[in-house]
Amino acid sequence: MTKAYGFAATDPSAKLAPFSFDRREPGAKDVEIDILFCGVCHSDLHTARGEWGNTIYPSVPGHEIVGRVTRVGTGVSKFKADDLVGVGCMVDSCRSCASCREGLEQYCETGFTGTYNGNLYGGSETTFGGYSDKIVVDQDFVLRIPAGMDPAAAAPLLCAGITTFSPMRRWRVSPGQKVGVVGLGGLGHMAIQIAHAMGAHVVLFTTSPGKLEDAKQLGADEVVISKDANAMAAHMASFHFIIDTVAAPHDLDAYLTLLARDGVMVLVGAPASPHPAPGVFNLIMKRRQLVGSLIGGIAETQEMLDFCAEHKLASQIEIIPIQQINEAYERMLKSDVKYRFVIDMASLKETQAA
Amino acid sequence: MTKAYGFAATDPSAKLAPFSFDRREPGAKDVEIDILFCGVCHSDLHTARGEWGNTIYPSVPGHEIVGRVTRVGTGVSKFKADDLVGVGCMVDSCRSCASCREGLEQYCETGFTGTYNGNLYGGSETTFGGYSDKIVVDQDFVLRIPAGMDPAAAAPLLCAGITTFSPMRRWRVSPGQKVGVVGLGGLGHMAIQIAHAMGAHVVLFTTSPGKLEDAKQLGADEVVISKDANAMAAHMASFHFIIDTVAAPHDLDAYLTLLARDGVMVLVGAPASPHPAPGVFNLIMKRRQLVGSLIGGIAETQEMLDFCAEHKLASQIEIIPIQQINEAYERMLKSDVKYRFVIDMASLKETQAA
Repeated sequence: MTKAYGFAATDPSAKLAPFSFDRREPGAKDVEIDILFCGVCHSDLHTARGEWGNTIYPSVPGHEIVGRVTRVGTGVSKFKADDLVGVGCMVDSCRSCASCREGLEQYCETGFTGTYNGNLYGGSETTFGGYSDKIVVDQDFVLRIPAGMDPAAAAPLLCAGITTFSPMRRWRVSPGQKVGVVGLGGLGHMAIQIAHAMGAHVVLFTTSPGKLEDAKQLGADEVVISKDANAMAAHMASFHFIIDTVAAPHDLDAYLTLLARDGVMVLVGAPASPHPAPGVFNLIMKRRQLVGSLIGGIAETQEMLDFCAEHKLASQIEIIPIQQINEAYERMLKSDVKYRFVIDMASLKETQAA
Repeated sequence: MTKAYGFAATDPSAKLAPFSFDRREPGAKDVEIDILFCGVCHSDLHTARGEWGNTIYPSVPGHEIVGRVTRVGTGVSKFKADDLVGVGCMVDSCRSCASCREGLEQYCETGFTGTYNGNLYGGSETTFGGYSDKIVVDQDFVLRIPAGMDPAAAAPLLCAGITTFSPMRRWRVSPGQKVGVVGLGGLGHMAIQIAHAMGAHVVLFTTSPGKLEDAKQLGADEVVISKDANAMAAHMASFHFIIDTVAAPHDLDAYLTLLARDGVMVLVGAPASPHPAPGVFNLIMKRRQLVGSLIGGIAETQEMLDFCAEHKLASQIEIIPIQQINEAYERMLKSDVKYRFVIDMASLKETQAA
């Protein structure tokens, strides 16, 4: 065992606070990583506060991890000390089911092991996430951060980036297509950039007129205020693909009717209570598809990182010291962040020294 | 003009009754058809009773038409007098939009012309359907009934058959796949036969234990009583494709959870009020797809007829004289039909003579 240090929630109502714990010694296939940055995802907050009812306490959140390799096991071929690497939402899976064999570990039939709040295969170890100084991960679940990429801005790609990239690849977003992005937050601001880089004509739907300039800078060709019925009607039945990143319950029909024939609307945000029921006629009349998508596989995550490096895409971030994580959660609930908080893990040392 | 005779609804509360009207003389591209049989679809009832709020009265329903060609226009190349032909839900479309050019006339961007209750392109003529002695239709919207096919049992293929065949082709139902059919009625009894003929392992979901034997005879490999939670749970996450033919509002999650990763559930029945809202997690966690589908294109309808002839598939029908149409509607509302009423149009002459 090796000593680790981070921030944890100890019960649903507690603020995150310093926490010492053990990491395993790197096994033959393991990579030990000194964590430099960790993005702050809404899932972290939901889990820390027990809002999904499945939290194992104490809980160390964080699954948008970028760091530097410190040690590798004897059987590690893919990485060596000092490599800049990333870890996303998964640290293991069964590796034998059809989904795992197809590189779709996120749909592992027995469930992948989450980077935090999971149980490792073949053991009782609870996984602790990236709000910590180090992590030990099997090399097959470690990503290479491309040369030249800013490590802090790369961190949110590991969740927000892949969650939006994967469905765009799956449903073949391509040049000339009209792509809608619903909501400009952590996911939405990556979706705009990626769809734009794929050559699509990108339209952002938002309730906030104040986001127009940002959206255009990110690559949106048009911005529609979703409360403006006329503006919405002007886009009727014209979209090939819409990615809906809004996790709060809202009217899906307003967007389904904007899909052209055979258009696809993908939901990547899961509301705590269901959206209002979508009308069946809207699906039938133009053979529209309402689908879901969950993060992405490991190989696809590497592809996404390389794609972002090639197109010079990155998350827009606000770097915080870990001591501000509880305030950051409150600000996140008010959408008061452009567009992702990233924890500078060097700040951990201040608490540790105190 | 040529005199035609049929049964029509004159207002939402009226029973269908004898009605005389005019058909156009066959134009250069037209085929005149002596109607032998017409299937009775739920849409007929909804329209006759004004339940969709768009009925043009008087209304002659009927869009599952089989008959014999009596006359053809000078420019007709595809058909000749005495041919056995069919007409389904459409008699025209714009023919120039992307959907029409792709053979997907049912998704015509300006709306196809329904066989009844529609307006013909370039004219103010209201279309009257198949509850009548004859019909005049452009050759491009006329289907060939394959040799050896029973004309009465072929009639429901023009709507119930193509509505279930088209999504199975679109989402590539293939040998070895597990296909679910929800509901055993006019559509469901065709879906079972077609999926079975495509080589799938077919499971019928029904609320009625009494339908087990029928379902197996039609080609179902298994029958699951949908109220039996244990029986449903045994099929969790195992289906490639589910076709839901039930138009009454019901819980979609019960079936969505039965889809394997990347599974598709297609809705072909449109309830008057929405289904309860489906859970988003069920879509996200296995990248499932909830889709709609509307009848099928003309070329695909011909393909379906040829497929049914090759595999000796037909609708199971109860033949009625047209004088029993109002009773038939009442029985249809109680699902008291196995599995489609078909009007023998020879019966029209009795009323006409009286």
